[in-house]
Amino acid sequence: MHIESDVPRQLQRSATSARLAVRALAQTSAAQRDAALRAMAAAVRTEAPQILAANAADLAASTAGPAFRDRLALDPPRVEAIAAGLETLAALPDPLTRDLGHWTRPNGLRIARIPAPIGVIGMIYESRPNVGADAAGICIKSGNAVILRGGSDSARSAAALHVALAQGLRAAGLPEQAVQIAGVTDRAYVAAMLGAVGLIDLIIPRGGKSLVERVQRDARVPVLAHAEGLCHTFVHAAADPAMARAVVANAKMRRTGICAATETLLVDRAAARDLLPLLVADLRALGCDFRADPDARAIVPSLRAAEAGDFDTEWLDATLSVAVVDGVDGALDHIARHGSQHTDAIVTEDRAAAQDFLRRIDSAVALWNASTQFCDGGEFGFGAEIGIATGRLQARGPVGPEQLTTYRYVLEGSGQVRP
Amino acid sequence: MHIESDVPRQLQRSATSARLAVRALAQTSAAQRDAALRAMAAAVRTEAPQILAANAADLAASTAGPAFRDRLALDPPRVEAIAAGLETLAALPDPLTRDLGHWTRPNGLRIARIPAPIGVIGMIYESRPNVGADAAGICIKSGNAVILRGGSDSARSAAALHVALAQGLRAAGLPEQAVQIAGVTDRAYVAAMLGAVGLIDLIIPRGGKSLVERVQRDARVPVLAHAEGLCHTFVHAAADPAMARAVVANAKMRRTGICAATETLLVDRAAARDLLPLLVADLRALGCDFRADPDARAIVPSLRAAEAGDFDTEWLDATLSVAVVDGVDGALDHIARHGSQHTDAIVTEDRAAAQDFLRRIDSAVALWNASTQFCDGGEFGFGAEIGIATGRLQARGPVGPEQLTTYRYVLEGSGQVRP
Repeated sequence: MHIESDVPRQLQRSATSARLAVRALAQTSAAQRDAALRAMAAAVRTEAPQILAANAADLAASTAGPAFRDRLALDPPRVEAIAAGLETLAALPDPLTRDLGHWTRPNGLRIARIPAPIGVIGMIYESRPNVGADAAGICIKSGNAVILRGGSDSARSAAALHVALAQGLRAAGLPEQAVQIAGVTDRAYVAAMLGAVGLIDLIIPRGGKSLVERVQRDARVPVLAHAEGLCHTFVHAAADPAMARAVVANAKMRRTGICAATETLLVDRAAARDLLPLLVADLRALGCDFRADPDARAIVPSLRAAEAGDFDTEWLDATLSVAVVDGVDGALDHIARHGSQHTDAIVTEDRAAAQDFLRRIDSAVALWNASTQFCDGGEFGFGAEIGIATGRLQARGPVGPEQLTTYRYVLEGSGQVRP
Repeated sequence: MHIESDVPRQLQRSATSARLAVRALAQTSAAQRDAALRAMAAAVRTEAPQILAANAADLAASTAGPAFRDRLALDPPRVEAIAAGLETLAALPDPLTRDLGHWTRPNGLRIARIPAPIGVIGMIYESRPNVGADAAGICIKSGNAVILRGGSDSARSAAALHVALAQGLRAAGLPEQAVQIAGVTDRAYVAAMLGAVGLIDLIIPRGGKSLVERVQRDARVPVLAHAEGLCHTFVHAAADPAMARAVVANAKMRRTGICAATETLLVDRAAARDLLPLLVADLRALGCDFRADPDARAIVPSLRAAEAGDFDTEWLDATLSVAVVDGVDGALDHIARHGSQHTDAIVTEDRAAAQDFLRRIDSAVALWNASTQFCDGGEFGFGAEIGIATGRLQARGPVGPEQLTTYRYVLEGSGQVRP
């Protein structure tokens, strides 16, 4: 009881100091913020023994299964990757000095739209310690402050990483309150964050489906959600067979647990008889299992029959839904009915068909002749990503520093009054 | 009871047909959408007698006070302004064909960020019939569909306007389901809209404080809110006196009931003794009343003393809060404590002071030597506005067609797979 009643006060204090940090960051130059990112990277390297020890303690205390333990675990290469990620961000262009448009009105008023930080970000994540460090780096790069609320299983790791990040900020003369960790790990703190209208400007949930859904359901603060990725790869009649085989195998099996992994293979009827057996053989060799519609099973009878709901399932595993469709129209129709507007691809040598597909699809990321697994902040050149946005407001797809900015207008006049 | 239980089904039908209209709009060219806007304008002119008759019936049935009746009332010039507004939108550049950035990755993947409509917009407004027509025009321009839910007092006017808008869409061969009005006007329909996750992509409330607050509190769908505008004009020590007098009088008194009207006058201590009496005299002559801090009253003793909360009050009336502050730092400190980050202005001939103010303030719109009342979509060149956004996500300040777009990525490869 005592802890719970303290939560709003703790959060209030935390968010208020974060707000002051945002104001202080607004007075810094891009060079100062980049220097801070490099200092944070250096501190992560210096503190690596303490970070690894804290992580070992987290792992020792955890009773979770192997997949969860793998996400939680740090080793020297993973700590080095965290430091290198911060340096990559430091080397990127400043998101706050872009020209977002400027024009002069007939009355002589000069209008400029310029980038601005969003403000105080609340980052709610689960076990992976690097998520907190990446989020901190992206927020510093974009002039935002962040309150990190990781899972209780990774509390020691998060605290040790936070010591390093704060050291780096201090060393660079930036306010360490720009990166904070939640003082308590009970769920009441998350609930308080979700309701902190006016204190927190944006909540970013990153983790499993139930976490994201809870945040979306309960938050009063705006949410940049990273929800379902039910991604399709459509192999068109005019696909190059070798390319199709390579792209499909990669899109499905490179990593099956990421949101941009292909969950459904659509094969054009005109090519299915020739191509589907080859695609299935490749994927089977990689350990993939199938759920196929009757037309696909008519060609490859050994495929397991799809059941109701299979085409609406994000497997996040070595299982692939398979359907035969009729051309671009059929593919788009299937995707409209079952997709999540995340990432969808076409493989074809027919430029007109590709352009028709790319023009008519409404996914955050649409690809032609490439693996859906390229939907990733690093692969887009954003340095790091804080998540893949699946909503339609503020940002879609990979969220890097630029997507964590808003804008404001500056108008210069010479005494204009409105008629 | 029967009506209420029908609401979700009605909304479901409405939103589903709106979603299909969005897909159909995505296949139209900018020229087609602009032709539709012109056809909508023509139909508004043709239907003017019916629109005015419906409005007269609304007015006859209304028991509201004069301010409300003025917002509700249409006359031939106001109907013509609605038609002209649609034509202005038609003449603007297409928001869906902007280049939002494109680049090539080291692996040869070509990435383009391109505009896309948001989808189905739910517009919740009160008595002013033109708000629905403006919203419809902005949505068609930007490829969105809109469900209009106006106040019950203006239901006949809204229905008559909708007949004209639908006629225009049909005449241009566009789906008339792109612009819909709520079939029922009871409050259950608003509640259903606010909870319509997956059916409606964005809710835009426009109206009084209680409407906006209710929407912000209850909505599960993302909201682009048009909330408080507690705007300041700061007259700096180096202001040109004549310009300051003209700008302040306009900022406060041109129209006192709009969100960009100045609510608080801040006068630099170094110029207050000379300037404040002049500014007060000008405003008094225009019918303005004052609530002043002790330092201002020491200079102009006839000013009424400000009470607790006055500097946090959006008057929306001929009342002005007045405070004496110390330079740019003092003005920014006052604005940070009392402002709403909507629109704030500085009047000065000192470029360095102006740039300091413009750089450090964090309002959606910051002005130098111009009236705060310029915060307006028309004045920005957006053609029309659907509101002034006061949040920090998706859009800030005047919301025109461009602000009602999101984006998506199109990637073109040559068989790239992710390492």
